[in-house]
Amino acid sequence: MTPVITAFEASPDRGRGLARDMRVRWAFEEAGVPYDVRLLSFAEMKEPDHLARHPFGQIPTYEEDGLALFESGAIVLHVAERHGGLLPEEPRARARAINWLFAALNTVEPVIVEREAAGYAERDKDWYAARLPLLDARVDVRLGQLSRRLGQAEWLDGDFSAGDLMMVTVLRRLEGSDLLARYPALAAYVARGEVRPAYQRAFAAQLAVFERSSR
Amino acid sequence: MTPVITAFEASPDRGRGLARDMRVRWAFEEAGVPYDVRLLSFAEMKEPDHLARHPFGQIPTYEEDGLALFESGAIVLHVAERHGGLLPEEPRARARAINWLFAALNTVEPVIVEREAAGYAERDKDWYAARLPLLDARVDVRLGQLSRRLGQAEWLDGDFSAGDLMMVTVLRRLEGSDLLARYPALAAYVARGEVRPAYQRAFAAQLAVFERSSR
Repeated sequence: MTPVITAFEASPDRGRGLARDMRVRWAFEEAGVPYDVRLLSFAEMKEPDHLARHPFGQIPTYEEDGLALFESGAIVLHVAERHGGLLPEEPRARARAINWLFAALNTVEPVIVEREAAGYAERDKDWYAARLPLLDARVDVRLGQLSRRLGQAEWLDGDFSAGDLMMVTVLRRLEGSDLLARYPALAAYVARGEVRPAYQRAFAAQLAVFERSSR
Repeated sequence: MTPVITAFEASPDRGRGLARDMRVRWAFEEAGVPYDVRLLSFAEMKEPDHLARHPFGQIPTYEEDGLALFESGAIVLHVAERHGGLLPEEPRARARAINWLFAALNTVEPVIVEREAAGYAERDKDWYAARLPLLDARVDVRLGQLSRRLGQAEWLDGDFSAGDLMMVTVLRRLEGSDLLARYPALAAYVARGEVRPAYQRAFAAQLAVFERSSR
């Protein structure tokens, strides 16, 4: 049975690959797993049918063979555990790759999302401009630490893994700011992710959805 | 070889079990795995020796048999995968439990930490009071969604799992606010976690560290 994921019918990122279905699409492409996509309007995401799959009313979800998941990290890990191409076989290297998956989601993404959310939700507040340097500084601390760990390596720990996949998608959320450019090693790391054929296929697929929806 | 974790020598939470070593201690206790703890001062956490283990200079870390991990989610999952008591054996139920582990860390914890961080870093700013209702509302949305999903169930999906362990520790970070009390089902859920013997042993162990440090 082909797995089915959900994605935005009209993504707020206008097809720039920043929505969370991108990381799942990319994982499927790296693993060579075909998948289907069901598109949802914002109204449909808040309906009981979708909330039964995703209690927080977001995308993506994953369904296959009686299993339903809703966290992009859990979906990527599930795909990585069942197919090749995303996790090393050696148990310790595998655990370290999963560690980077969690680091992307729980240590790096939150400060990036907090900065992004302020742009959406507090741009009209009189404190917005005064707070922005604080938000930038929180992101900058994490980027500096990550850049020092990466050093001149190609990927975070040996070969490309699900941990890199997740970290690249998280860092890409800084697109439109100049924060990443302060760390050339990280910018080059993201670029290495973006030129992977699997990334390119996933990006093209989500962009095609946006282009259809905006016709 | 006994695994070794790191924890605060003098925890900022004053032994209330809110630091991230608590979730790892609790996982060890549920799994019946003995562990050792190395305590670190704030200065030691920023030294090269610790940064080699934890690139973001935090606690906990985990070391065992040549493997080093630093994300609490990855450590809990690693313990859960290798020992009994924290994940169902049936593959689909296991994937759903891991899904809840990610939901706790990537969907629920970020809004709670954002609110908490404002209390530390922005309490002296003139916008602090005006922003607090926004921060509370972001947490409240997630709590409402989580409470609706939990309903009257004992745990999030069948038996107690690593997903519940993580969600309970995340929700406990709201201690000192009245946010959780608005959702009696969630407050009862947290209380069910707290009375588990494994939780009690983990809590006592981290409290003992704080009490020794404050003598």
